Amino acid sequence: MEKFNVKAYGTQAIDADLELLTIPRREATEKDVEIDILYCGVCHSDLHTARNDWGGTVYPAIPGHEIVGKITKVGSGVTKFKVGDLAAVGCLVDSCRECDHCKHDLEQYCIPGFTGTYNSPDKHLGLRTYGGYSEKVVVDEHFVLKVPENLDLAATAPLLCAGITTWSPLRHWKVNQNSKVAVVGLGGLGHMAIKLAKGLGAHVTLFSRSPKKEQDAFDLGADEVIISTDATQMATVKGKFDLIIDTVPYVHDVNHYIPTLNINGTIVLVGYLGNLEPMLNTVPMIMGRKSVAGSVIGGIAETQELLDFCGKHNITSDIEIIKMQDINEAYERMLKSDVRYRFVIDMASLKNE
Amino acid sequence: MEKFNVKAYGTQAIDADLELLTIPRREATEKDVEIDILYCGVCHSDLHTARNDWGGTVYPAIPGHEIVGKITKVGSGVTKFKVGDLAAVGCLVDSCRECDHCKHDLEQYCIPGFTGTYNSPDKHLGLRTYGGYSEKVVVDEHFVLKVPENLDLAATAPLLCAGITTWSPLRHWKVNQNSKVAVVGLGGLGHMAIKLAKGLGAHVTLFSRSPKKEQDAFDLGADEVIISTDATQMATVKGKFDLIIDTVPYVHDVNHYIPTLNINGTIVLVGYLGNLEPMLNTVPMIMGRKSVAGSVIGGIAETQELLDFCGKHNITSDIEIIKMQDINEAYERMLKSDVRYRFVIDMASLKNE
Repeated sequence: MEKFNVKAYGTQAIDADLELLTIPRREATEKDVEIDILYCGVCHSDLHTARNDWGGTVYPAIPGHEIVGKITKVGSGVTKFKVGDLAAVGCLVDSCRECDHCKHDLEQYCIPGFTGTYNSPDKHLGLRTYGGYSEKVVVDEHFVLKVPENLDLAATAPLLCAGITTWSPLRHWKVNQNSKVAVVGLGGLGHMAIKLAKGLGAHVTLFSRSPKKEQDAFDLGADEVIISTDATQMATVKGKFDLIIDTVPYVHDVNHYIPTLNINGTIVLVGYLGNLEPMLNTVPMIMGRKSVAGSVIGGIAETQELLDFCGKHNITSDIEIIKMQDINEAYERMLKSDVRYRFVIDMASLKNE
Repeated sequence: MEKFNVKAYGTQAIDADLELLTIPRREATEKDVEIDILYCGVCHSDLHTARNDWGGTVYPAIPGHEIVGKITKVGSGVTKFKVGDLAAVGCLVDSCRECDHCKHDLEQYCIPGFTGTYNSPDKHLGLRTYGGYSEKVVVDEHFVLKVPENLDLAATAPLLCAGITTWSPLRHWKVNQNSKVAVVGLGGLGHMAIKLAKGLGAHVTLFSRSPKKEQDAFDLGADEVIISTDATQMATVKGKFDLIIDTVPYVHDVNHYIPTLNINGTIVLVGYLGNLEPMLNTVPMIMGRKSVAGSVIGGIAETQELLDFCGKHNITSDIEIIKMQDINEAYERMLKSDVRYRFVIDMASLKNE
């Protein structure tokens, strides 16, 4: 298979910093588009993969799945895009496209498993897929999104993961103007959850452990902030919420929030992969028909729906632009939650290196 | 308040057997009906309450909330019933009737809390409510159900708890002819779950730890039995079920069943009140948009819907009839799961004592 080399940032070992590398990309085949990457968001999963926190990382690892760019080449069979179009790529670059879930626009739940934008087996080059910390990416047009012209491109990048991860449960659980939604955690995902739930017309509450985040939450559009360590405040929202989007990426006590669900309410976990410790107690779930659920990213059609919605409502992420060369420092700051609310890499910094 | 005495069976202490007692009943007020109890089912909750397993038992405790009988008196304002009618009472004898849930026929989730048929504060006599192990019961007509004439009365009694506890989640999660339903546990609740899911037209699978229950499950209408300790059999149902009704009343590993849910699938716990041990792992929930939920009994309108459905489809419980005097032995057998599938007390045995 024809290929070409591009510059990228990646890591060659579990304990190594990210550094400049050269990686291969395939020449665009019939249904492929080649994208010149302009911006790439920095997701917690990037860091988890670089450091093999979840196991399974194959080195070199090139993270990045919040990609926005411009199309520089299209295959002969491409119908959705032309050279010069803005384009975006999220967490998926392929799936089986034949299973029941793929056929219903649920590629994120592809039964044989989707191909992630990085660290998945690459069906074309036989290596691993390499993500958006690179000059260019080549992707089948089915997995490429159109970007509304009116949005700030850098601030659009995080919609591709942080955005869709919170949008998908808001849509699946049918949030609308009559909904009462709460958000746990105010980071990359949490701040998008507030904006998107608000965009859908819901009443939005942020649960926060710290009063310091109160003004930020209001600025993002929250109607209410509840300090989750304050029992008196927690009592005021007993039985209130139809949906809680829990974005916290580390172990925490989910039991704490269950009494604030209305009957038929659901707390959906989108950030924490692991065991629910302390143990989940079934009593309030049974006595109030409450659910604990999970949700991962979203399908391609749903991601396009999100981008179109954001274009219409002028919603983007709040970001801090960094250079590619600052990525290791950005990871350290991310670990300290020292970011409002998403780092986005200006990829010109890589091209100029 | 006017009252009269009836014979009952109850227990006066945590470690005491049930014995013959005399308890007061109020004279029927305006909206009350007085029911001569013909049959009363024996539920696990009866035993838990008698032995104070959940705490909160006030002695004497008179269990029994699967009550079928005949009306012997009606208050002047009663409109639904007349003397001589068949009638049934389930787990609820009162609720606030004013909260949002009560107004939507969800008395089981009454916000100030429903009044249980036994061991709840009795608003009329100031004592505790006393259940169906007694000659008569007096209940507001709103909480009294009509019994289809074609059903076997003794075998109808367990519909009032075991039936509605499984019916309510089947209805809430919209089970129909296209649904694939699994049931965990083949006891009082589990055998009703099979019959009712089958009655709704679903494909029904029983998860069982023992091949010995296979024929029984087929006899009850199950389409399939999966031995849950057999990894090969479990693999055949990966991603299959839309709804799993988990009736197991003791701690068990819910993680074991999650991979058998389809995306958007729910495992609903109706039997086990306590901590989920081992801890619930979020990974398969997130990677498949799966839910863990709880559900308790059902509302009054929904219970009437169930009885009408059972009348139409000729569905009742499989029972073993006992005398009131055999109740202590029945409890011991119940603890050993030595019952197919519900004990029902023939209350003539109490009247004749």
